[in-house]
Amino acid sequence: MSHYEIRTDLALEARETITEEAEELRGVSVEEFYQKEIDVRVTKVIIETKNGAKAMGKPIGTYITLEAPGMVEKDEDYHREISEELAEHLAEIIPDLEQEQSILVVGLGNQDVTADALGPHVVDNLYITRHVVKEYGRAAYNRSRVHMISSIVPGVMAKTGMESAEIIRGIVQETEPTVIIVIDALAARSTKRLNRTIQITNTGIHPGSGVGNHRNALTEESLGIPVIAIGVPTVVDAATIVNDAMEKTIEQLKKTNMGMEDDFPKIMSELNNMYVTSKDIDETIKSLSFLISEALNITFDRLE
Amino acid sequence: MSHYEIRTDLALEARETITEEAEELRGVSVEEFYQKEIDVRVTKVIIETKNGAKAMGKPIGTYITLEAPGMVEKDEDYHREISEELAEHLAEIIPDLEQEQSILVVGLGNQDVTADALGPHVVDNLYITRHVVKEYGRAAYNRSRVHMISSIVPGVMAKTGMESAEIIRGIVQETEPTVIIVIDALAARSTKRLNRTIQITNTGIHPGSGVGNHRNALTEESLGIPVIAIGVPTVVDAATIVNDAMEKTIEQLKKTNMGMEDDFPKIMSELNNMYVTSKDIDETIKSLSFLISEALNITFDRLE
Amino acid sequence: MSHYEIRTDLALEARETITEEAEELRGVSVEEFYQKEIDVRVTKVIIETKNGAKAMGKPIGTYITLEAPGMVEKDEDYHREISEELAEHLAEIIPDLEQEQSILVVGLGNQDVTADALGPHVVDNLYITRHVVKEYGRAAYNRSRVHMISSIVPGVMAKTGMESAEIIRGIVQETEPTVIIVIDALAARSTKRLNRTIQITNTGIHPGSGVGNHRNALTEESLGIPVIAIGVPTVVDAATIVNDAMEKTIEQLKKTNMGMEDDFPKIMSELNNMYVTSKDIDETIKSLSFLISEALNITFDRLE
Amino acid sequence: MSHYEIRTDLALEARETITEEAEELRGVSVEEFYQKEIDVRVTKVIIETKNGAKAMGKPIGTYITLEAPGMVEKDEDYHREISEELAEHLAEIIPDLEQEQSILVVGLGNQDVTADALGPHVVDNLYITRHVVKEYGRAAYNRSRVHMISSIVPGVMAKTGMESAEIIRGIVQETEPTVIIVIDALAARSTKRLNRTIQITNTGIHPGSGVGNHRNALTEESLGIPVIAIGVPTVVDAATIVNDAMEKTIEQLKKTNMGMEDDFPKIMSELNNMYVTSKDIDETIKSLSFLISEALNITFDRLE
Repeated sequence: MSHYEIRTDLALEARETITEEAEELRGVSVEEFYQKEIDVRVTKVIIETKNGAKAMGKPIGTYITLEAPGMVEKDEDYHREISEELAEHLAEIIPDLEQEQSILVVGLGNQDVTADALGPHVVDNLYITRHVVKEYGRAAYNRSRVHMISSIVPGVMAKTGMESAEIIRGIVQETEPTVIIVIDALAARSTKRLNRTIQITNTGIHPGSGVGNHRNALTEESLGIPVIAIGVPTVVDAATIVNDAMEKTIEQLKKTNMGMEDDFPKIMSELNNMYVTSKDIDETIKSLSFLISEALNITFDRLE
Repeated sequence: MSHYEIRTDLALEARETITEEAEELRGVSVEEFYQKEIDVRVTKVIIETKNGAKAMGKPIGTYITLEAPGMVEKDEDYHREISEELAEHLAEIIPDLEQEQSILVVGLGNQDVTADALGPHVVDNLYITRHVVKEYGRAAYNRSRVHMISSIVPGVMAKTGMESAEIIRGIVQETEPTVIIVIDALAARSTKRLNRTIQITNTGIHPGSGVGNHRNALTEESLGIPVIAIGVPTVVDAATIVNDAMEKTIEQLKKTNMGMEDDFPKIMSELNNMYVTSKDIDETIKSLSFLISEALNITFDRLE
Repeated sequence: MSHYEIRTDLALEARETITEEAEELRGVSVEEFYQKEIDVRVTKVIIETKNGAKAMGKPIGTYITLEAPGMVEKDEDYHREISEELAEHLAEIIPDLEQEQSILVVGLGNQDVTADALGPHVVDNLYITRHVVKEYGRAAYNRSRVHMISSIVPGVMAKTGMESAEIIRGIVQETEPTVIIVIDALAARSTKRLNRTIQITNTGIHPGSGVGNHRNALTEESLGIPVIAIGVPTVVDAATIVNDAMEKTIEQLKKTNMGMEDDFPKIMSELNNMYVTSKDIDETIKSLSFLISEALNITFDRLE
Repeated sequence: MSHYEIRTDLALEARETITEEAEELRGVSVEEFYQKEIDVRVTKVIIETKNGAKAMGKPIGTYITLEAPGMVEKDEDYHREISEELAEHLAEIIPDLEQEQSILVVGLGNQDVTADALGPHVVDNLYITRHVVKEYGRAAYNRSRVHMISSIVPGVMAKTGMESAEIIRGIVQETEPTVIIVIDALAARSTKRLNRTIQITNTGIHPGSGVGNHRNALTEESLGIPVIAIGVPTVVDAATIVNDAMEKTIEQLKKTNMGMEDDFPKIMSELNNMYVTSKDIDETIKSLSFLISEALNITFDRLE
């Protein structure tokens, strides 16, 4: 069934399909650890070689994933702890944070579609400083060193008529940030990852992934500065779910020569352009976006 | 697979599962006609007897369905034509509109979840008159007779702590409308009905249907006045889609005794509380809600 | 200029116009204290007699006002401290909180007008429990005693065709809460109180006050249960500001018989239906509503 | 009182302060006409010389103003007529519309502050074509010639950390539109112009005007392509209103040497950062933005 592409934005899921042995051979290193006190599992996948990239279907780079089942529960103190854990990993993956940076945070996605509004929501709670530093200097914050933080919600192509990448490229040329952080809602392969997984990577964003597919490449290669991507899977492609559910079955049916697998393409084409999401997605997006914006605020505030 | 309940809010879909012959026997009458100029198919299902109700799994009453493939396309003049067609059928099903009525329009659903926000959006574009008539009389509109229109968006139980039905009952007792019109986003059984079908019925709303399940009964029986429900399917239960896709297959597998059908419950339980919707649901909800509020405004404005 | 009514919803401001001596005579007691660590000034005005009520132009009851200049600044820890201070005073003024209550929180105002959206925003962040307790009992919270919290955003009359009071009365009859808490954006007399003052009172809400005037009386007398009102001045009537600015001047002009005061009514009538608000009102409402919802959550969570 | 700058974004108001004679001398031409059927007054002010610009306090260029008292009333057919009138004037002022253009529409303002959200709302209802033409060519619209329409809502500096002008300059460099249309909520000098006046000009947008002051220059000079600005006054500076109300009075007081004018600066400084707007601003913005987006859609759709 290779003609129905299985879409996943998660390195974690990509990795599940290849064996541990294969990993070693192919230039993929994996570390896992579990933060017991806060019930967070952290997986760090580093794809080191072209072979590794090919095997994983993901570019060379670092992918850090936090999994926390309680991420969407209403418990502020707990959220703060996850934000702090996330901040640790952000500090690790964003380059040169011990020096002053000009950081542009991009909230991808569609503000008007709940499951796709994660990026715009995160940006909404950030502590923005660039305009103040530009006008009044660092003194405005009583500090000797301050990161300049700016943000943009480019909107979706159906509403702007432009690729997000066109908008970002223009803003980067004009405002010259030193690093970009992109937030986006992702598509996962399985509902069990939804709303409880955060992936951060230094490989940026590549065409064809994400909920609304609202961009082409946002990478260091295309923009000339490091691009860190933060993503949370909030939807699963409807076709992927049905595909996964039926995969083994279909294979069996093929063996028995009953011919029923022929109905399958019709079913799948009806699911085209459909996605699956949870019913309480509004509360979920609110919690998750707050958690991520907190983590970013903590990370940016550490410079002294 | 009777333990996975196939949920549909559409009488049209319920009817598809029973034969024409059975209909006649069981007290269900069906009329269909096609408005060629505007490409709208109208189906009128009248369930006349208890047997009919049992066969259809729907209460005794009238169900009018408009199907229009172009409903979500951006064409204002066309929308106006569908609104006028819909207004005709509303005028037919709302009782005693040739006399002054006090009409409470209820926008069910969750404003913060795109696919569930149809009701709140419809209410937002209605022409509200009750407060003006109460304060200044019909004279304010230069008319001898005017319907008093009021509206409410009760919100969802997770946010109010109350059933929508509790809120509506209270408001009905206090403000004494003579008829209620309830707008809600529905769940369909198949993606092919999504966003192109409008159902109006005089049977009100029954527990367990709808996107967010945000109510118990809103019916003439429970509220003491006629309750007209207008619904548009905007989502499909994720479990329903997988179920439908696999149904025949599973039956075959059962015959072959391969035992694979045992994996099925696990897959289904993961899909619990998930739904499937289209990716451009924001534009869709905007178009559909405008179309329905126009139809209501036209209907209410006809009294002279 | 008594024909231009000076509108203020703040007992604090009403009091400023009468002398201390008068207070004692007229049955008004005033206590003030200053919480130095958090820079919050608390004023407690108790109107004890009909004479006091007449002198103050406010009903008999208790009015507690918190003034905190830093209320709208971006400092989470500080906000938490003000929320806790506010929670203390709420616990004092809401009757019988040491026993289980069923508390209906009403968010008055217009969600679509920034300065009037305080009530709806507060309700949006409350921890709602009534539906859970109703369905699963206190056990759902691992507690022997829990308050049942419900909430409603009734909307504004121009959109519902109903008075907020009609909607609330109906819901109260149907769901039988034991106490009501109403949140509303208020009108102040002077811009210097805007967005930095919170008033809580056990006298409920009276016709004619508030930003949008969206209600008639919500009081213990009209609803049969205690009604606590929480208000924050977010606007000043445009006419009030001009009036205040010109008051002394006009009096002088009257003395000089120059006759210019005749232009005044024309100016004032143009300001009819206009209000004054701050330019960063969006951030302000966000901060204030979060602060108040936190205070309510803390207050409701204290029962053991 | 020249130290309190009287702010107006309307050429119409600027003109009211100079005499007709002066106009002729100073290179300002004024035409007025009245469309009786739709009760719209059109004023066309052309500032032709530097002297004219100095006298008016506005740059050289064309300013067309439509005044329609009924603009905010709920009457769709009437709105359509005003949209068509506005479309006529847009077609006149946007250069070279008889040839294919790539038009970037910019919605200035703050989506979260009702009175400032006009621009974002207008953009939300535009018919966007650039991405479709880029991908599928004109054929997608069954036309030989189509304008490419794109749009952006840059957001406000407090949230982005960037000037709107920086964002627009970047996007212009990257996507190379041939003309820009900027929509913004304006400040008027008097409440009598609020929400009933639309100004279109080919002089773009200049620092310091507008509700939220959210930009520096957006002009043909700064961007290299023609910039058409469409503005509607939705607020009046609070200081301006008080200033206007008191102006004559103060002058009189100065003559009488009573010294009371000394209190004035204190009053004015309290009004700093405050604005006056109407109470039904939400409905108003909704109507006005729809009217303008309709006019733009009509204008752009005329190419054959």
